[in-house]
Amino acid sequence: MAGECGEGNCLGWAARDVSGTLSPYKFNRRDLRNDDVSIKITYCGVCYADVIWTRNKLGDSKYPLVPGHEIAGVVQAVGSDVKRFKVGDHVGVGTYVDSCRDCEYCNVFREVHCVNFPTGTFNRLDSDGTITKGGYSSYIVVRERFVDKIPDGYPLEKAAPLLCAGITVYAPMMRHKMNQPGKSLGVVGLGGLGHMAVKFGKAFGLNVTVISTSESKREEAIKVLKADKFVVSSDEQQMQSLTKSLDFIIDTASGDHPFDPYLSLLKIDGVMVLVGFPSEIRISPLTLNFGARSLAGSVTGGTKERQEMIDFCAANKVYPDIELIGIDYINEALDRLTKSDVKYRFVIDIANSLK
Amino acid sequence: MAGECGEGNCLGWAARDVSGTLSPYKFNRRDLRNDDVSIKITYCGVCYADVIWTRNKLGDSKYPLVPGHEIAGVVQAVGSDVKRFKVGDHVGVGTYVDSCRDCEYCNVFREVHCVNFPTGTFNRLDSDGTITKGGYSSYIVVRERFVDKIPDGYPLEKAAPLLCAGITVYAPMMRHKMNQPGKSLGVVGLGGLGHMAVKFGKAFGLNVTVISTSESKREEAIKVLKADKFVVSSDEQQMQSLTKSLDFIIDTASGDHPFDPYLSLLKIDGVMVLVGFPSEIRISPLTLNFGARSLAGSVTGGTKERQEMIDFCAANKVYPDIELIGIDYINEALDRLTKSDVKYRFVIDIANSLK
Repeated sequence: MAGECGEGNCLGWAARDVSGTLSPYKFNRRDLRNDDVSIKITYCGVCYADVIWTRNKLGDSKYPLVPGHEIAGVVQAVGSDVKRFKVGDHVGVGTYVDSCRDCEYCNVFREVHCVNFPTGTFNRLDSDGTITKGGYSSYIVVRERFVDKIPDGYPLEKAAPLLCAGITVYAPMMRHKMNQPGKSLGVVGLGGLGHMAVKFGKAFGLNVTVISTSESKREEAIKVLKADKFVVSSDEQQMQSLTKSLDFIIDTASGDHPFDPYLSLLKIDGVMVLVGFPSEIRISPLTLNFGARSLAGSVTGGTKERQEMIDFCAANKVYPDIELIGIDYINEALDRLTKSDVKYRFVIDIANSLK
Repeated sequence: MAGECGEGNCLGWAARDVSGTLSPYKFNRRDLRNDDVSIKITYCGVCYADVIWTRNKLGDSKYPLVPGHEIAGVVQAVGSDVKRFKVGDHVGVGTYVDSCRDCEYCNVFREVHCVNFPTGTFNRLDSDGTITKGGYSSYIVVRERFVDKIPDGYPLEKAAPLLCAGITVYAPMMRHKMNQPGKSLGVVGLGGLGHMAVKFGKAFGLNVTVISTSESKREEAIKVLKADKFVVSSDEQQMQSLTKSLDFIIDTASGDHPFDPYLSLLKIDGVMVLVGFPSEIRISPLTLNFGARSLAGSVTGGTKERQEMIDFCAANKVYPDIELIGIDYINEALDRLTKSDVKYRFVIDIANSLK
């Protein structure tokens, strides 16, 4: 059993093959370097990326694979050069743990666009020569620059989903100036990302319309998430009534879907941002040109905007809605996630269940 | 012959059927209303739109059809309420001659986006109950608001192409802040629109790269149009060398073409604007999202930005390159235009050839 479980100073749960089934696995985290922070993980959010790589959907998975890149925890040790953190601080780690730190994008703290590629939090070659292992584990050692401060009083379990789901919608919303009170926002898809887009939209003072494939989400969208309007995308009449009415749209849908019906809802000069990954985008130039519209893409964000987002959430009491689970439930949770059966983010209670 | 030619106070050249062949045609222009300007047409640019509608490519052509929406001329009479113009002024008329003048877009002088649709300069129902007839004619009567002032000293024959080709690239360039000296611009396609984009790019102080399907345009692009760089789009190595190097791209190609190879040339946050009308846009979300890139559309511009553009051209000596022709040559010119055989815009010398 020891062999199967591995050996080392850190206990995690890993997938061993394309089945993606996770089970306990021990491995070694590196000794603290001068600019490292050692973090006792208390919570880890469950992102669809965890399904993709544990099941080797992209063909590049390296087993055993410990997923998890929405990490919240408490500093347990710091290297001698670390300035921003001390033992006991609440912190977060997101989708990458290193980058070249010396290119035009790193220099402006948009490390996700590092020209030498950022080092993903799991399944990537780390600077210490090991393959990175994610947050489904008892602790993690990360270079200071890639660690965020979680303000005191912000519930750590709710902080976890901010590190990927939160920043993925917040970053493009800020970049495309969607934080203008009184403007209108459409949110396509109401999963982990979409529900955060609704929350940010309301916090920014926007008029928010949820556009969903499923009528069943109406009550939740309006009553719980406080969206102003709800439209079922298959209802042509409802969609028609929104033509040219929205300033912005965030499209969080990853399944294949048409784009023209959504783009048509934008006013002149309107901007739609895609943060999901359907297999292809097909658009009519008529929709784009006659509306002077834009379709933009985005992928998470840099460390600077991520810290800003966390501070914004603390100041404005923006909290993800989560379903807290024990690590023993993770295989069932990943199955449910593939069916979008979660409101709205699973978060693993690492501290109380990983033993 | 009189019957075939029609009767009326205005002589033009019209297409009579889907052959698109143009021949002399007389029709009536309305009497001057209080806010009308009567313009003796001296020059008219030849736009691909003239091919589309004379040949009924969109199925909505109304014959006899007098095309032409790049009109330059001299004021010959003004209505009693006209304030901005007097007899003898040099003026231009672009792609539309009216709009509701009372919607959110008209109110900010972006009449091309009028919610009640602007009235096209030809083949559309005018407010006087007639079908609009364009600039392949001796004079035109247009509501003051839709007439632009051409500054003294700006050659009228060169002013004509500004009214459609010029504004079509200038408007999105300004809207997407492409007038920042030192930034880099890619121009896809080197026709009437593309050559104006190169000229505006250089006038804005941009580093301009022409991306063309044809090696034969290299010398012209560099030596005559003063582009900084020239790349053949089918040469993968040349294209590869430009990866992530451009801040902006203007895509003027109307033929079907792939989008990912061009979008890949954009830096992070880069913006590509499409002003042509291929039949479809297909993009990989990977190209868009990982580059945080935008693809925007645009269609000509409003009266305010059009006047600004004309004034910018006069102040900065930006002149379209034209091939001046007599009206007798128009059928051959339209044929040549369908083969992109023109550098870079045909302009009809109306005053000297339409008799």
